[in-house]
Amino acid sequence: QEPQLVSRRGAAAVVDAGDGWGQPARWLATDTALDLANACALGAATVRRSYHIGRVAPYVEAIARHGKIGLAMANCAPAVAPFGGSARVMGTNPIAWAVPRGAGRAPICLDVATAAIAEGKLRYARSREATIPEGCLLDRDGQPTVDPNDFYAGGALLPFGGHKGSGFSLLAQFIGRGLAGMDPSAYDGPRGVNGPFILAIDIAAFTDPAEFAAQVDAQCAAVVGCRPENGIAAVLLPGDRELAERERRLRAGIPVPDPTWDELRAAARDYGVATPDVHAAAAS
Amino acid sequence: QEPQLVSRRGAAAVVDAGDGWGQPARWLATDTALDLANACALGAATVRRSYHIGRVAPYVEAIARHGKIGLAMANCAPAVAPFGGSARVMGTNPIAWAVPRGAGRAPICLDVATAAIAEGKLRYARSREATIPEGCLLDRDGQPTVDPNDFYAGGALLPFGGHKGSGFSLLAQFIGRGLAGMDPSAYDGPRGVNGPFILAIDIAAFTDPAEFAAQVDAQCAAVVGCRPENGIAAVLLPGDRELAERERRLRAGIPVPDPTWDELRAAARDYGVATPDVHAAAAS
Repeated sequence: QEPQLVSRRGAAAVVDAGDGWGQPARWLATDTALDLANACALGAATVRRSYHIGRVAPYVEAIARHGKIGLAMANCAPAVAPFGGSARVMGTNPIAWAVPRGAGRAPICLDVATAAIAEGKLRYARSREATIPEGCLLDRDGQPTVDPNDFYAGGALLPFGGHKGSGFSLLAQFIGRGLAGMDPSAYDGPRGVNGPFILAIDIAAFTDPAEFAAQVDAQCAAVVGCRPENGIAAVLLPGDRELAERERRLRAGIPVPDPTWDELRAAARDYGVATPDVHAAAAS
Repeated sequence: QEPQLVSRRGAAAVVDAGDGWGQPARWLATDTALDLANACALGAATVRRSYHIGRVAPYVEAIARHGKIGLAMANCAPAVAPFGGSARVMGTNPIAWAVPRGAGRAPICLDVATAAIAEGKLRYARSREATIPEGCLLDRDGQPTVDPNDFYAGGALLPFGGHKGSGFSLLAQFIGRGLAGMDPSAYDGPRGVNGPFILAIDIAAFTDPAEFAAQVDAQCAAVVGCRPENGIAAVLLPGDRELAERERRLRAGIPVPDPTWDELRAAARDYGVATPDVHAAAAS
């Protein structure tokens, strides 16, 4: 199913994913938002009928690599309690932004779940039979727990940052459900649907892009030059850890928990696909 | 000093506050963003050379009362440590959004400082000689403290929500400092300057506004209908408490701490202005 651009009015566009994977539709939405921002100073696109879009960072990073500010969010299946609540009412709703630094440097990018912990990290902890930090999860009876299995037995994640984080999650929920027209709880199909929104802001419509880059660099210098808290080695910018980890994994491979690898091999066997014998090599 | 609209290109506008109070400039920016969104589906404005803009909520609420989605942020004077840091590098940087509900109902609005606690609440605690909650403030030596006076002695607030909240504050910092051109630490003048940005999104460019309102109402019903956590009476929507408090204060008056009232009376005496004898009445 090819994604379609179904409407374009002023600085706004709507993409239809046709119930297909979200990634190609989200790239069409990203490219369209960039086009619109070139023409109108701002550009935004929603995606209708979209399955999982994957990580949000790549879309806003692409906008920042074109010298613009990117902001994106999405809702997803109910998994998170609102502040003060104990049952699933919102998605883990990622919000991401990226800002260009100029001079060929990688953009600065934040990409976070508005849950206290991303669902992917729950799944990773479960596959390693590990616990998760306190303050992230309630079990199905509304009691605090650190066992990731309690989520899959009907528990609810907590939002990050108390009522403030809950409020940011709710914005992504309103925009995904209202503007992108995706209510995952009423959607008849496999899990993993998203209601995505992406915005591109043309810096040159507001200020001199070189001056913007200079201010961003000065702010970054202030952050990384900040005296660390006791016990912390250095203050990082959003994305610093991910960039370093990316370099490391490009050299040393990507660690995959044994249960996940076993699932992948079983799926490959079912479809008659050979699996490369890279697991041990990567772990060594 | 009257605020001026200095540029308007596509869906983007820049307002110059001319070093005057931020409120009139911010209203011009809000009205312009609404005009632009009517014409272009999106509209955004920054304000240059702006003193304090006050609460951010009224601007985004005005956008939502016109049936559009409002999103706003601003940077301000360094007061907050980045995640992992212990010195002032970012402002308390408010972020606010408002979403219309339709049918003449008040918009839903979130307006939060990206610090763990707003500076206004520090000042309120100090005037009442009260402590503040743990996890909000470091003293000038980087040690955790609950004494609001430690902030005014050179301490640093912490961001809300750990690295995630710190990342949202940093976005407001980049946008205020880079896009609105306001670096408070390099600004020669009284404290309280802001670098504001406001965005209006025309819902009708993406979907049927009646369907949007129906989805927002359904989501609100899910939030307030959510089973509360132990010890919590009810789950609230953003702004519910403020609306209730507004009603109460319209009836019973606004409580003002005695030291603040004394300051106001002293200032009034200095300028030969009579102060109404409402304090005791309001407190009764």
